[in-house]
Amino acid sequence: MNELLNLIELKKDKYLEELKEFLKLKSISSEPEYKEEVRKTAMWLKIHLSKIGFEKTQIIETKGHPIVYAEWLGAGPNAKTVLIYGHYDVQPVDPLEEWHTPPFEPTVIDGKIYARGTADDKGQIFAHIKGIESHFQTYGKLPVNVKLLIEGEEETGSGNVEDFIAENKKMLQCDTVLISDTEWYTFGLPSICYALRGISFVEVKVIGPNRDLHSGSYGGVVDNPIFVLAKMLSKLKDENGKILIPGFYDKVAKVSEEERKHFKNLPFSEDEFKKDIDVEELSGEFDFSVLERIWIRPSIDVNGIKGGYIGEGMKTIIPSEASAKISMRLVPNQDPKEITEKLTEYLISIAPKSVKVNVTPYHGGNPVITPIDSPGIKAAVRALELAFNQKPVFMREGGSIPITATFSKVLGAPPVLMGLGLPDDNIHAPNEKINLDNFYGGIKASAIFFEEYSKL
Amino acid sequence: MNELLNLIELKKDKYLEELKEFLKLKSISSEPEYKEEVRKTAMWLKIHLSKIGFEKTQIIETKGHPIVYAEWLGAGPNAKTVLIYGHYDVQPVDPLEEWHTPPFEPTVIDGKIYARGTADDKGQIFAHIKGIESHFQTYGKLPVNVKLLIEGEEETGSGNVEDFIAENKKMLQCDTVLISDTEWYTFGLPSICYALRGISFVEVKVIGPNRDLHSGSYGGVVDNPIFVLAKMLSKLKDENGKILIPGFYDKVAKVSEEERKHFKNLPFSEDEFKKDIDVEELSGEFDFSVLERIWIRPSIDVNGIKGGYIGEGMKTIIPSEASAKISMRLVPNQDPKEITEKLTEYLISIAPKSVKVNVTPYHGGNPVITPIDSPGIKAAVRALELAFNQKPVFMREGGSIPITATFSKVLGAPPVLMGLGLPDDNIHAPNEKINLDNFYGGIKASAIFFEEYSKL
Repeated sequence: MNELLNLIELKKDKYLEELKEFLKLKSISSEPEYKEEVRKTAMWLKIHLSKIGFEKTQIIETKGHPIVYAEWLGAGPNAKTVLIYGHYDVQPVDPLEEWHTPPFEPTVIDGKIYARGTADDKGQIFAHIKGIESHFQTYGKLPVNVKLLIEGEEETGSGNVEDFIAENKKMLQCDTVLISDTEWYTFGLPSICYALRGISFVEVKVIGPNRDLHSGSYGGVVDNPIFVLAKMLSKLKDENGKILIPGFYDKVAKVSEEERKHFKNLPFSEDEFKKDIDVEELSGEFDFSVLERIWIRPSIDVNGIKGGYIGEGMKTIIPSEASAKISMRLVPNQDPKEITEKLTEYLISIAPKSVKVNVTPYHGGNPVITPIDSPGIKAAVRALELAFNQKPVFMREGGSIPITATFSKVLGAPPVLMGLGLPDDNIHAPNEKINLDNFYGGIKASAIFFEEYSKL
Repeated sequence: MNELLNLIELKKDKYLEELKEFLKLKSISSEPEYKEEVRKTAMWLKIHLSKIGFEKTQIIETKGHPIVYAEWLGAGPNAKTVLIYGHYDVQPVDPLEEWHTPPFEPTVIDGKIYARGTADDKGQIFAHIKGIESHFQTYGKLPVNVKLLIEGEEETGSGNVEDFIAENKKMLQCDTVLISDTEWYTFGLPSICYALRGISFVEVKVIGPNRDLHSGSYGGVVDNPIFVLAKMLSKLKDENGKILIPGFYDKVAKVSEEERKHFKNLPFSEDEFKKDIDVEELSGEFDFSVLERIWIRPSIDVNGIKGGYIGEGMKTIIPSEASAKISMRLVPNQDPKEITEKLTEYLISIAPKSVKVNVTPYHGGNPVITPIDSPGIKAAVRALELAFNQKPVFMREGGSIPITATFSKVLGAPPVLMGLGLPDDNIHAPNEKINLDNFYGGIKASAIFFEEYSKL
């Protein structure tokens, strides 16, 4: 591997110039006027992948933007197969006036490269492409089979790639899915995110009288749907953060002491956390640390509520209805479908007879966990440690990355999140950047990953 | 009085023709394109009042539509003075296609006259004008002094007339204020409404984190402003409809058994009431009847609520804030200012330290009550009984008519609500009408009122 790592050192400038070319392409997937530019980016990528040595490269049409697919299966049927997932589309650039350098003119300042998509996700997926190239150039081959799936609609919800995966299980068959689209816990601490929370999302509507009533003529005798909804919401969680839906915690997996120890060792300041969001006091299950509450415990939130008159001034009505959007973050081994049903039953059971209640399920997403002693995670640990000269830390995420659940569920392949970004990368914001050390280190980590994974 | 009542019988057709002229004028106060028509209506009224015998008639300019004022003080300084209040403006006519006859072409069908403003309030105020005229024509005078205050902005909030009253206390000085702008309890039951609930209205805002947070990254550790607001709202009222604001009931006047007996005798079907609004069950303080809960007990309602994402689909945020509009209906002798303060203190006291709470008071209105044994009410009872050959019933209103509180508070004159409308008059709706029996009976009732009131 030394020869390969030396090559990477020598080619840094070339890699950076190529990354700049990739970054100059305005692949904003959510804005229709960039449709052709998105396609141009996909084409550029396909040609680039052919040039560096992929046997097969493909533009796959979808109902939206195309998917770029490439594979190299030269390691043979007995070797392991790694699917690398990433996306070539980027977020819009508004507000443009807050950028210090133009978003599509990549600019290096103080060891960081600024442009839209540097961290999310062009810089990260490109590190893998260069990691693969370094193997081709040094050894003429890879120690594992590689499939590359780079979509153009991650920033608009990944709807079409989800369908594509479901319909092409055989083509995408693999032993693990390597994804670099997340960030380190903090600067200087390479991180492996090995679990994500799932989600269940519903809308509940409380329907009272058949029309808005005059609160003078009816106030005192008719149950007000907003009051009823408020009372129902107040019964979802107790003062200690415990969720009151019967059976909610039944399948929550116990987290090992080893894992909890990893979290305890992470630098965390509750004061800074509170200051950043400007609240005086945190809430929740105080038997668990803040990170544990976010990463290993399920949660429930009301994401929106509306009812009655919400314009300026006053209107004295008892509204006919009120509704709320409720989401729950789930942890292994909670099942979104089952939890949605439990919530629905509970909401109906606590509503008074004076109202009707409708619950509409919107979306479910499974929690994802890849055991920290699984081959993919072990290889990623080794890769980050060697590439960055620093033992990586283990972390989880409180949010969901729906496609990881799809890989896990549909392909049966454990995802490995070997993120290369940093919390201050300004993704989805002006002045997005990636630190060059992370980009170059990421190329090395990718190259080492294939080597290490092939041995496990 | 027989001579006078005979005269009214003889002049019915003339009165109806004059009412039609009044109804043809399109005095829609809320629509700017009718501004000139509103003024024309005021002018028509002024000229009409001059013609029938008022000494002094005036168009009083305001920042909005003009007020028509007239007085006859010929009964002398030792006689009582009655101020009659009404309005000559009307509601818009949309949806026009639902009218069976054109809204400004008064049409008599089956003893009812259809047109915008028939019941609200042209027909009712015109009954008083004709009642006064019948005295002038029969006796050449009235047994009381009369002041007529007819505004043109009742349907847009009466803002300018409220100011006018406050600034012209001496000019408007009187012993009682007679108002016919309400309706009977039901067909065939002439009614006197002798009390109205007051109101206190506030908006409460719960402010949590300084920005909307990702519910994945923060769910489980940050108090959600919607949850907090829901919990606060759920603490405003218990399961038995009792309002939990400390001191809320301190000043609630006990209602006499005599009054409660009047309400018990009124026809009321709880089944029909529920069917009309399509609810399975009523709520509130079950120690009181439905009518009592609406008329003599204070109530609290949430009139509107909003927070977080309320568009289509999902957005998984913990919102930065949530707010609700809360109104309370007050009964004698609750003071809106004091109650608003109590609610504000209570809301702040039940909020957790994790949020900030802002309470904005919007509006207060005093409850109004005119004792049923006061001279004005006694005269109205006698007037309705003689005019309609039916003993009137006593009722209250759950809503507020803010101007009655102004008369009571600013002029110190007890208001007497001698309504002539019926619940099926379609006020504010297509096909507004007044029954001709109620219009003609109203003229007699008005004439008799002056006579009876002068004797008490």
